[in-house]
Amino acid sequence: MENNVMEEQLRTLSELLEERRFSGAGAIVKDMNPADAAWILEELPEQRMPVLFRLLPKELAADTFAYMEPESQELLVQGFSDRELDEVMEQLFLDDTVDMIEEMPANVVKKILRHVDSETRRMINQVLNYPKDSAGSIMTMEYVDLKRSMTVEQAFERIRRTGVEKETIYTCYVTDSRRKLLGIVTVKDLLLARKDEVIRNIMETNVKYVSTHTDQEEAARALSKYDFLALPVVDAEERLVGIVTVDDAIDVIQEEATEDIEKMAAIAPSDRPYMKTGVFATWRKRVPWLLFLMISATFTSGILASFEGALAASMVLTNFIPMLMDTGGNSGGQSSATIIRGLSLGEIQYRDVPRVLLKECSVAMLCGGTLALANFVKLLLVDRVALTVAAVVCVTLVAAILVANIVGSSLPILAKRLGLDPTVTASPLITTIVDAVVLMIYFNIAKAVLGI
Amino acid sequence: MENNVMEEQLRTLSELLEERRFSGAGAIVKDMNPADAAWILEELPEQRMPVLFRLLPKELAADTFAYMEPESQELLVQGFSDRELDEVMEQLFLDDTVDMIEEMPANVVKKILRHVDSETRRMINQVLNYPKDSAGSIMTMEYVDLKRSMTVEQAFERIRRTGVEKETIYTCYVTDSRRKLLGIVTVKDLLLARKDEVIRNIMETNVKYVSTHTDQEEAARALSKYDFLALPVVDAEERLVGIVTVDDAIDVIQEEATEDIEKMAAIAPSDRPYMKTGVFATWRKRVPWLLFLMISATFTSGILASFEGALAASMVLTNFIPMLMDTGGNSGGQSSATIIRGLSLGEIQYRDVPRVLLKECSVAMLCGGTLALANFVKLLLVDRVALTVAAVVCVTLVAAILVANIVGSSLPILAKRLGLDPTVTASPLITTIVDAVVLMIYFNIAKAVLGI
Repeated sequence: MENNVMEEQLRTLSELLEERRFSGAGAIVKDMNPADAAWILEELPEQRMPVLFRLLPKELAADTFAYMEPESQELLVQGFSDRELDEVMEQLFLDDTVDMIEEMPANVVKKILRHVDSETRRMINQVLNYPKDSAGSIMTMEYVDLKRSMTVEQAFERIRRTGVEKETIYTCYVTDSRRKLLGIVTVKDLLLARKDEVIRNIMETNVKYVSTHTDQEEAARALSKYDFLALPVVDAEERLVGIVTVDDAIDVIQEEATEDIEKMAAIAPSDRPYMKTGVFATWRKRVPWLLFLMISATFTSGILASFEGALAASMVLTNFIPMLMDTGGNSGGQSSATIIRGLSLGEIQYRDVPRVLLKECSVAMLCGGTLALANFVKLLLVDRVALTVAAVVCVTLVAAILVANIVGSSLPILAKRLGLDPTVTASPLITTIVDAVVLMIYFNIAKAVLGI
Repeated sequence: MENNVMEEQLRTLSELLEERRFSGAGAIVKDMNPADAAWILEELPEQRMPVLFRLLPKELAADTFAYMEPESQELLVQGFSDRELDEVMEQLFLDDTVDMIEEMPANVVKKILRHVDSETRRMINQVLNYPKDSAGSIMTMEYVDLKRSMTVEQAFERIRRTGVEKETIYTCYVTDSRRKLLGIVTVKDLLLARKDEVIRNIMETNVKYVSTHTDQEEAARALSKYDFLALPVVDAEERLVGIVTVDDAIDVIQEEATEDIEKMAAIAPSDRPYMKTGVFATWRKRVPWLLFLMISATFTSGILASFEGALAASMVLTNFIPMLMDTGGNSGGQSSATIIRGLSLGEIQYRDVPRVLLKECSVAMLCGGTLALANFVKLLLVDRVALTVAAVVCVTLVAAILVANIVGSSLPILAKRLGLDPTVTASPLITTIVDAVVLMIYFNIAKAVLGI
């Protein structure tokens, strides 16, 4: 329903802009939520976007700007007058500024940096220097810091004075003169305390924090685990340098889940939405894995070729190759998806490996048994194959699922242990390995049982 | 590093409890973060858990309880004295109480409900009545409500008086006498406003909200889109009945991503962590899909059987079946994973279908061309097959990728349009369909070109 309302507003605004009825358009957008305004702006034809952007009230314009995609931001910056750029940059939070700068071409970055003060420029450079995907790279330096000798009243004064340009004021950070983090105090604590109470007595000293080089995913997971609104980030000397806020943590969680899903499907991950990625970019993301997997799959051709004699002797065996390979691949995919997600969420640790393997083998025996039974009945009654052929197929089926689950569960854990990304071992790669193993098992059992 | 600290503490606590040095153990846990305390309790042997729980300070005990898994909660509740249960229930937030009750057997629920006041009981029943996975079922009713005629000072008084037991105080909801939602005001707004300012003048009236029956995933997405700390939930008469807080939204986002990954790997989703799910439960989650996919895969056996003559005439064709089927499956899996995630994140709409299909076909032609070229060279130089055979394989390869991408991208969208879950159409199902189509194409091209 909400979506329909937005589509409706988009249509109305397009018409108003076309007819150059700007005050009408301005009246519609002036109370809009910035996320919605950003959506509308990006759906408009390119030449109308700057027109509507200029109709936004000053503060909303900056907030909306922060929600837009890098391409649209670039387009707007290119067209901004000096005053417009000043206004937007002044309102923008530091982490949004950094996000934008990371995606812009050099000439636009230069234009932007001319419009921020030297202190902000220093902070931008600092954040840009942290490794990609680290807590440092997504943090903001705009937090409220307090001293432990302050009273609650003094703390509120400081929040009132400095809070308007902070990204969050609800968790305040107590630091000493060398910026070492001593404790945190929330606005809720402050509101519920007496006005003359001293911060030292009400602050929480058991503070959870991450370092600037901590992986952003780990930072997001900590924030979610402890239900925090913000998580402090410290440098190598344990001095507070910034905070990661919950809204950025959610974005990280969403991005990492998308990345996991892409990698499991053998796609090189990107941080661009599907509809905004071009055909060539999509091709580049997909073709390397397809190529690699195709080449690995030729091993199966080799195996098939080496058993050509056996196949020719018993053509009926060919018919069950796809079913056996598919089932092995499916079962291995189930195992690996479960294990990869468990590793991702921190639910599975290295010390769990024996339990994981035991469990996957037990599940494989149960699933294999069920499937073999169903298949055996079908092979005899529907396909009417010889009893020995049915036996070969069903024994291979159980073996295939067992191998698939062992490979599917141990490969991601092994990858993680070796410092590799467990996700890249997912389904397609495992399928290729399982295919080869299943064929070897199949023909060797067939040779032994059928004597071909 | 953090993990090692926790493991270390776990070992120390186990030893202290074993040696019955309870005051030592109590000293360690008394300042612990509740999420950490919950982890430690659940890692301890079952008989030690209640012992350590009783060593926690009262308030920490209730917070820790909220972070524990349902089984552990049940174990604790079974052993609680009336006074202990009273203390925990009094401290627990409503949404945590409801989460717990949903998972408990009836006799434990009865015991719990005897220890909550009648107002809480009424609210619990109301929340329990909302559909599973709806915004109503995850909301809390413990929010701060204000009247628009209040001054800022009166608002702060109300927050101080009622705030301590609210789940969040940072966003306050302005309602009229019939509980209709008029606006929101944040504590930041309040702190930055004059004390005698009236709420009416500073409240934000363009309020985003969801209804009690909105899907929880949509509510979480809205919260993340607008960077809110809490999202109001209204009933059919637009009266405010509760709020969804950001910590619960993050849990929903994590759960839904896990569910998507499980379904894409053809596993019935569960909301239990892997290590806490038994072998039989895991088997039940996996075997139906394996069985269904195995039966569908027998279609491929049928197709192979029907082309037995052609195969016998040109045995070399068999060798490339696995490679063709795998590549088709991989490419279809790439398309479907991308589209399913895009649908999940709301990035792809129905009106995008023509653009999606056009793009997938273009990408398929590019990927197919690349792979066919690589394969052609390999077939001639390495495998030394006849030119005609190489041509058949490579043309089939392009066709396979084209079909795979069309099926992989359109099936999820079609499923969603029909009100089905797009995720269940993912990779394995698509693989099965693609396999069958690829075989048909392969043999028909082979028959035509090779004249067999």
